[in-house]
Amino acid sequence: MTNIRDFNYNLIISYDGTRYNGWQKQGNTNNTIQGILEDTISAILKQPVELNGSGRTDAGVHARKQSASFKTTIDISDKSLFISHLNDALPADIAVTDCTNVSMKFHARHSATGKHYAYYIDTNTPRNVFQRNYTYCIEEPLDIAAMRAAASELIGTHDFRSFCTKPIEGKSSIREIYSITIEKQNGILALNFKGNGFLYNMVRILSGTLVDVGLHRLKADAIPSILEQKSRRYAGPTLSGNALFLMEVYYD
Amino acid sequence: MTNIRDFNYNLIISYDGTRYNGWQKQGNTNNTIQGILEDTISAILKQPVELNGSGRTDAGVHARKQSASFKTTIDISDKSLFISHLNDALPADIAVTDCTNVSMKFHARHSATGKHYAYYIDTNTPRNVFQRNYTYCIEEPLDIAAMRAAASELIGTHDFRSFCTKPIEGKSSIREIYSITIEKQNGILALNFKGNGFLYNMVRILSGTLVDVGLHRLKADAIPSILEQKSRRYAGPTLSGNALFLMEVYYD
Repeated sequence: MTNIRDFNYNLIISYDGTRYNGWQKQGNTNNTIQGILEDTISAILKQPVELNGSGRTDAGVHARKQSASFKTTIDISDKSLFISHLNDALPADIAVTDCTNVSMKFHARHSATGKHYAYYIDTNTPRNVFQRNYTYCIEEPLDIAAMRAAASELIGTHDFRSFCTKPIEGKSSIREIYSITIEKQNGILALNFKGNGFLYNMVRILSGTLVDVGLHRLKADAIPSILEQKSRRYAGPTLSGNALFLMEVYYD
Repeated sequence: MTNIRDFNYNLIISYDGTRYNGWQKQGNTNNTIQGILEDTISAILKQPVELNGSGRTDAGVHARKQSASFKTTIDISDKSLFISHLNDALPADIAVTDCTNVSMKFHARHSATGKHYAYYIDTNTPRNVFQRNYTYCIEEPLDIAAMRAAASELIGTHDFRSFCTKPIEGKSSIREIYSITIEKQNGILALNFKGNGFLYNMVRILSGTLVDVGLHRLKADAIPSILEQKSRRYAGPTLSGNALFLMEVYYD
């Protein structure tokens, strides 16, 4: 008899983080993506569930394809109907786009093997009013060639402690960045980062450092020495969360 | 001595109408695009101005390139600086993108010779959370070929009284539609309407009627008889304003 938590599901979730206090549930506030999703799933399944996200996103940060898994005793045979019930109940700025059965060992955070983040910069003068919740605005010209040169120095396996807010003592800050691309379309500069994992605030600090290079506040060849210092103070600023998107989470 | 209103300027304005009560100033409420722009221009020029828009947009309706003209005694020689001061003072969801000297006879509404509107329909299941303020959502499949066939019957000069809310007695409801295009990209259906002018709610009713055709609630060949009836009750519903964009205003 195995009547407890026989099924494990992974959801793919898209959300506009503008009016939320981030992913992670906090006490009694019902102003987090995790909190709202857990309540909605629990109400539909008539059973309390605990939803494990692939990682936290901060206040204002968005997701195209966040992953989150939960275990339940209930066999959800009709996934489309379940998704449809979820989306009918969820607010218009959160949507579940997929639900799949995964092995009982699967955990959206622990099983993740990589992530893709994007950071968007509006270089239009004046700003694009329709992108204001999704971009960081810079009116000065950016040297994109210099930004790409600096980005190439970040690729590979490094100790990214200089690009992390509040590193956790005893925990490794070594990560591998697979690729960084920088492309402009309609005046919006998209910085795409793919890697095996990212430290707290790492994408926002990487973006702030690349912007400093683009503004010629930092030299493109300064990256190796910033990495070497292993201290937050040598990297650029932590740019605002509203321009950050978790694009996708990778699993084997 | 001609010290009153020697200069006439036309502005191009982009705005996200989501949180506004439309274009048109209403009493003391400062919740309209016109009201906010007039106050901002008047404060910068240190002189009260009256701003004449190319037309009203309703609550929730957006504009990519609204036109609005105003007269003043002040010679604005540095337009870039003026635009920059305006945008620094305006809220993040309103931006002035251009300012040009126009002849004293020019009036943004009376001088307009045509307009381009777009209506956006999100056909994604589930909805695109980032487009929720800018689209009307339809989950049922739409017969786009039928919509295009119906649209072709609307092209040309017709009495569009059937496609108008509250027609004004004694005022002509004859208009010319130059073109209607219907294209889908990333699941978002864009209906583009260009014509010499549009009646009150006309684009939203045209869109509602074309959607009824797409859903097979109306036949594609029903358009001529709807036009002929000259009565609002034969056309489709007035779709929501949040999916409507004033794209551009044309002048000779």
